Amino acid sequence: MSDLAARIREARAQFEKMRANPAALDLTRGKPSAEQLDLSLPLLGILGPDDYRDGHGNDCRNYGVPDGIPEARALFGELLDVPAADVLVGENSSLSMMHGAVAAAVLHGVPGGDGTWHGRDIRILCPVPGYDRHFALTEHLGLGMQNVAIGEDGLDIEAVERAAVSDVRVRGIWIVPKYQNPVGVTLTDDEVRALARMKTAAPDFRIFWDNAYVAHHIADELDPVADVLAACAEAGNPDRVFLFGSTSKITFAGGGISAFGASPANTAWMRKHRGLETIGGDKLNQLRHVRFFGDVAGLHAHMRKHAALLKPKFAAVQRGLEERLGGTGLATWTQPRGGYFVSLDTAPGKARRVFEMAAEAGVKLTPVGATFPYGDDPEDRNIRISPSLPPIEELERAITVLATAILCAADG
Amino acid sequence: MSDLAARIREARAQFEKMRANPAALDLTRGKPSAEQLDLSLPLLGILGPDDYRDGHGNDCRNYGVPDGIPEARALFGELLDVPAADVLVGENSSLSMMHGAVAAAVLHGVPGGDGTWHGRDIRILCPVPGYDRHFALTEHLGLGMQNVAIGEDGLDIEAVERAAVSDVRVRGIWIVPKYQNPVGVTLTDDEVRALARMKTAAPDFRIFWDNAYVAHHIADELDPVADVLAACAEAGNPDRVFLFGSTSKITFAGGGISAFGASPANTAWMRKHRGLETIGGDKLNQLRHVRFFGDVAGLHAHMRKHAALLKPKFAAVQRGLEERLGGTGLATWTQPRGGYFVSLDTAPGKARRVFEMAAEAGVKLTPVGATFPYGDDPEDRNIRISPSLPPIEELERAITVLATAILCAADG
Repeated sequence: MSDLAARIREARAQFEKMRANPAALDLTRGKPSAEQLDLSLPLLGILGPDDYRDGHGNDCRNYGVPDGIPEARALFGELLDVPAADVLVGENSSLSMMHGAVAAAVLHGVPGGDGTWHGRDIRILCPVPGYDRHFALTEHLGLGMQNVAIGEDGLDIEAVERAAVSDVRVRGIWIVPKYQNPVGVTLTDDEVRALARMKTAAPDFRIFWDNAYVAHHIADELDPVADVLAACAEAGNPDRVFLFGSTSKITFAGGGISAFGASPANTAWMRKHRGLETIGGDKLNQLRHVRFFGDVAGLHAHMRKHAALLKPKFAAVQRGLEERLGGTGLATWTQPRGGYFVSLDTAPGKARRVFEMAAEAGVKLTPVGATFPYGDDPEDRNIRISPSLPPIEELERAITVLATAILCAADG
Repeated sequence: MSDLAARIREARAQFEKMRANPAALDLTRGKPSAEQLDLSLPLLGILGPDDYRDGHGNDCRNYGVPDGIPEARALFGELLDVPAADVLVGENSSLSMMHGAVAAAVLHGVPGGDGTWHGRDIRILCPVPGYDRHFALTEHLGLGMQNVAIGEDGLDIEAVERAAVSDVRVRGIWIVPKYQNPVGVTLTDDEVRALARMKTAAPDFRIFWDNAYVAHHIADELDPVADVLAACAEAGNPDRVFLFGSTSKITFAGGGISAFGASPANTAWMRKHRGLETIGGDKLNQLRHVRFFGDVAGLHAHMRKHAALLKPKFAAVQRGLEERLGGTGLATWTQPRGGYFVSLDTAPGKARRVFEMAAEAGVKLTPVGATFPYGDDPEDRNIRISPSLPPIEELERAITVLATAILCAADG
């Protein structure tokens, strides 16, 4: 009997015990842990009773300043590589900013375009595996989706270029440029330049640049990403990109602030739409955030504390998977330097079975297919692991169950 | 020479002096004053470092609980007469909630309807004079608008009923039920019942019930409004109404929380759409608000402090207008018991002239027409006065200028 066959046999015995005594573990949620949230507790009480004015003297307790307070625009501008004048600071959810932008494109069209996207056969390129909420809002707004591959070796930029240049229906692409969800890969300078330069059949192609993990490293150093707005401008496509960011996984998830940035023409367009949709973001929460960080250096110092908490959890995932699956060829998984996820691929056709087995042993995984448009993983192999939330012992136990299930699923 | 002619002659002399020495006064903005905002200063620091869990134990610093924390849903439920289970607590802007609901109706249709409202000839009834942001978002979303009259003697409910029953294009109505902007009138029980009961040609007629001034009295007592959700249910039209509210003019304008309420079917519809559009509202700000108010009685006690600050300002408007214009027949104006505005009507064809003269004397008024769809006041007579923001001496001076301009405009 081969070594692998022995490991599988052993795993099946172990799995029977796990199933008989199921855990209650959850690897589904890309949520910060309580320890991470504790890092931002000073934010709660940071505004004293006399501290409610921004640097321009605006009373943040009142209406007005719909673009956001100048300090918050400057902070996001520096973080996202956008001039502060072209940053709009929004509410607590960058998803809401993204939905607002795509919905406005659908209802009204974007600058340089040929009108509304509503009721037309319009397609958005979706690097897969990717972020389910991007896909859900795209589908909900009536836009089609077309898969392009992304992996640890990068984005399939040739497929992107081919689709963009040859098909006028292709009007955009979702990009998570840094520590992509779930692969963890960061765009290279060449990839950024290619996205900025490529010819597109559509006059109004947009990159929806969701820089959700802009400061979220696990490794000692933060990955750099090329300045996409400058690259687009240099390539003669200044209006090609909408940038989004938020502090959701920097301070409080759902209690942070978000931002939109783009070219002056795009920002004027977004400002106009937001002006009709909202009275503007919560300026007091913007003020809390700028007081808490001080500046971008302060934000990065804060993120090093997050990294210190996340590093052992990501290491535990690697250790657990390597220990049981290393050398078996039954799965591959990413080793991200930042972000919130590990992306694991089983052999084709195995992921659903692994999901079910893990569930039988009390480990909840992100539903297979969630990382693909329409919930459809065509090869049935991708599993997204979220190590941030559970305590490390629970995480280790869950990874053991997962790896055991993968071993068991290998022969049937 | 008549008494009026003498007053006009005197006014012209005074106006020349005012124009020669213009003020810098602003009556345009329905914003709370700094003194009103000070009432809510304890809100800023109300959450201590150990206070971030709602009554169900949810960590308000993290993702989750997209419907809002239970205490905030209960608070708005009691305030708006909606069961807490059918309340969704949102971001800082009820305008954004309203836009979200109308945009979802446009893109997807509403429960009980015949599909999307996009690209169809659909009309929304707009009581006039009314709130410019309702009109702007309605127009922006591609819906037509049709005026119906509202005045101190109430809504022209017969015109509403006639339009609703006879024209399938008529799909909704904007209603500010209490202390309407800008008239200040509160719907009677009969009017609420009529809106709930009336036959409509459209299967999916919606009342967009913006209860912006639900607790905002100036008089000693709060006006009651009939329970519209119950009235709709009793009339066999349970899904007819979407309710909206916010704390924008209760705590901090733009730093508060908002809510949507409706029937279970409508709320499920709104929950589904919001689930695709946002990760949910800022639960920490929800927690701040419920801690600050304690309960609805606490909210009403807080609003009595607002009333004490607003009462002398509204009295100054009445005094200033009565003193110069009383008995002249040159203008009529409302005497609201709550809300944020006084609505003044000049003789037909005079409002634009008054606006310009006031501007020459350094008093900025809300642009004439702003209180009507498409910015078009067909009779050129309505002027909205916002007394809340300026200090009382400035307010008195501005009202003097306004009244003087009305006198001067009387004879040509």
